[in-house]
Amino acid sequence: MPDISEKGIKMPASPIRKLVPYADAAKDRGIKVYHLNIGQPDIPSPQTALDAVRNFDSNIIEYGHSAGNLSYRKKLARYYNRLGIDISHEDILITTGGSEALVIALNVCLNVGDEVIVPEPFYTNYNSFALQAGVKIKPITTNIESGFSMPLMKEFEALITPSTKAVLLCNPNNPTGYLYSQSELEQLGEIVARHNLFLISDEVYREFCYDGFEFHSCMELKGLENNVILIDSTSKRYSMCGIRVGALITKNKEVAESVLHFCQARLCAPAIGQIAAEAALDTPDEYFSAIHKEYKERRNCLIDKLNKIKGVFCPIPRGAFYTIARLPVDSAEDFAKWMLDEFEYKDQTVMLAPAAGFYHTEGKGIDEVRIAYVLQKSDLTEAIKCLKLALEKYNRFK
Amino acid sequence: MPDISEKGIKMPASPIRKLVPYADAAKDRGIKVYHLNIGQPDIPSPQTALDAVRNFDSNIIEYGHSAGNLSYRKKLARYYNRLGIDISHEDILITTGGSEALVIALNVCLNVGDEVIVPEPFYTNYNSFALQAGVKIKPITTNIESGFSMPLMKEFEALITPSTKAVLLCNPNNPTGYLYSQSELEQLGEIVARHNLFLISDEVYREFCYDGFEFHSCMELKGLENNVILIDSTSKRYSMCGIRVGALITKNKEVAESVLHFCQARLCAPAIGQIAAEAALDTPDEYFSAIHKEYKERRNCLIDKLNKIKGVFCPIPRGAFYTIARLPVDSAEDFAKWMLDEFEYKDQTVMLAPAAGFYHTEGKGIDEVRIAYVLQKSDLTEAIKCLKLALEKYNRFK
Repeated sequence: MPDISEKGIKMPASPIRKLVPYADAAKDRGIKVYHLNIGQPDIPSPQTALDAVRNFDSNIIEYGHSAGNLSYRKKLARYYNRLGIDISHEDILITTGGSEALVIALNVCLNVGDEVIVPEPFYTNYNSFALQAGVKIKPITTNIESGFSMPLMKEFEALITPSTKAVLLCNPNNPTGYLYSQSELEQLGEIVARHNLFLISDEVYREFCYDGFEFHSCMELKGLENNVILIDSTSKRYSMCGIRVGALITKNKEVAESVLHFCQARLCAPAIGQIAAEAALDTPDEYFSAIHKEYKERRNCLIDKLNKIKGVFCPIPRGAFYTIARLPVDSAEDFAKWMLDEFEYKDQTVMLAPAAGFYHTEGKGIDEVRIAYVLQKSDLTEAIKCLKLALEKYNRFK
Repeated sequence: MPDISEKGIKMPASPIRKLVPYADAAKDRGIKVYHLNIGQPDIPSPQTALDAVRNFDSNIIEYGHSAGNLSYRKKLARYYNRLGIDISHEDILITTGGSEALVIALNVCLNVGDEVIVPEPFYTNYNSFALQAGVKIKPITTNIESGFSMPLMKEFEALITPSTKAVLLCNPNNPTGYLYSQSELEQLGEIVARHNLFLISDEVYREFCYDGFEFHSCMELKGLENNVILIDSTSKRYSMCGIRVGALITKNKEVAESVLHFCQARLCAPAIGQIAAEAALDTPDEYFSAIHKEYKERRNCLIDKLNKIKGVFCPIPRGAFYTIARLPVDSAEDFAKWMLDEFEYKDQTVMLAPAAGFYHTEGKGIDEVRIAYVLQKSDLTEAIKCLKLALEKYNRFK
């Protein structure tokens, strides 16, 4: 039997994966499991996008242009322009989700063995994308005490070696919910310029900002036109995670040309997904204001209740729909497993994502969990009640 | 401005790309261009698949399972079983087109720097997939004189080094249209077993076989259960190139597990595409018999007329919808450019794909073109008439 490759052996399973059999077993026992572990929104996709799918009027589902449908790219450029991001459709390459955009960005910007600095905790699949591109992640730890704000610039500079080619930032952040300020981005921009790095900015949660705080795109940073690679996705913005339509946006012509060649190799992004995504651009503002209100209420409900649980600490996230909470337990993973395996309250329990999986540095975040607030408030309330009782019981037995 | 990576620099543009501006300019001059260069079928997608898209009845387009929708995988397993391929849904991972399946297969089976043997001419994007995975293609030349049949086994053995980890075969072949016989596959299977290689078998044109010759899958080869990786796609079978739904199939549990981890990293294959693909499995046999008849007539019309042109030689392809023809010219690329740039007959001309782009070995195939017979017979007839007149005129001026 032939051996599989190093990449094949090293490619990590989704870290939440380990808990899935316990959740399945709980469900088999008739327990209702509240999924605080996943980022699948329960918000309906925009009607205009659903209608476009249902009105698909060609009799052949053909290849599209490798860079994405021209009409979609033009309309998408206008969406960015309205946000104050000055780009044209020629700077946009439509990808198969934000995931593909990230893999291509790492392949185009970094050589095998090069390093990319990423503030941790970070979206775990960044590890897989880096492995696919053959590049090394250099984590820079952010802390729950400071709400996961931007690390000090001297910490970035201390990590930079001749192999450092890029910084990868997620803003608003998954998993922390942190929203970077303009001043933080400008400071980072200076470092990026000084060391001639690429700045790969994953901004897929742009629409989800709260408390009047404004989102600022790295694409607006002056003088970094050739450094910034913007990663985007329609998955969260329009609650259409399944269409697999994202984008890579750059004003660096050399990068854009190479990205196009990667896109040509896989022919095109999903045709029907692109039709849905283009139609979604006509989504009325009311859709977003309703979602915004809903998520803000969910967040407030969640954070308020979490911080009232003895020993729990959770900073107030200003963006996305995630937060990281510290629990009064030695191992959040053991606790999460125990909740699924041994705990129930009124035939209910909760599935949490242990945050250690979001840290690159061994031993970090072991008493933290990531919580996604993509459930209805009534369910969130029940879920937090379960969590509170579970913590009390778990710590009594400890 | 930061430097882009080696991969970024080396990633080849689609080789036909160079001719596109000439085709566009011809169209701007009011010339009708017959596209013999592309593999986008003009056959309608199955009605059952189009209906499934139009009847999409959820109000959220959600993430699906990373391995693919279970209902689709189960139904797809039955499709293979009917063809005599003995696999279960657990051996199937749904991918974003055959392209993604190939990239993942190379990443999982080969280390950076390892070698994969591929009979040439081959589908040009194999070069891009190999570059992405960091592996080297070792071509083994097949010849137009023998109709591009399987190379001798001693030629394979002569190429095998300690770095050789796999053979990649496309059957029926794009770009040659060659259909490998059971005996050829069995011989190759012996080499694969003897040297403990992976056999990556791209069988996306399985349904397109003519003249009573039967298709044989590498998956049927005895004793190679842990060596064979089957690559599939719905693009050509159902004329749905835009849905981007393919599959990677293997009985090797270690490979399947690693492939799943790659699939988890990109979350899921396109949701609506999978719905279309699942519905397409209900396509009635009449759809395929009509297509089969149509393609066979097109092929006969094409090959017959091509071989009647003085100096042109074209073997009879038994599968897919491509053929490679040798033209009486020094450079098929120059001729193809000239046809678009300087030639017209009754305001019509032809776009051809120079075959050199399908060979890995420098200097091979320079007087050959790949022709896709995805046009109606009347258009094919006009296109070949153009080609004949163009060759006469081109060679008079030479």
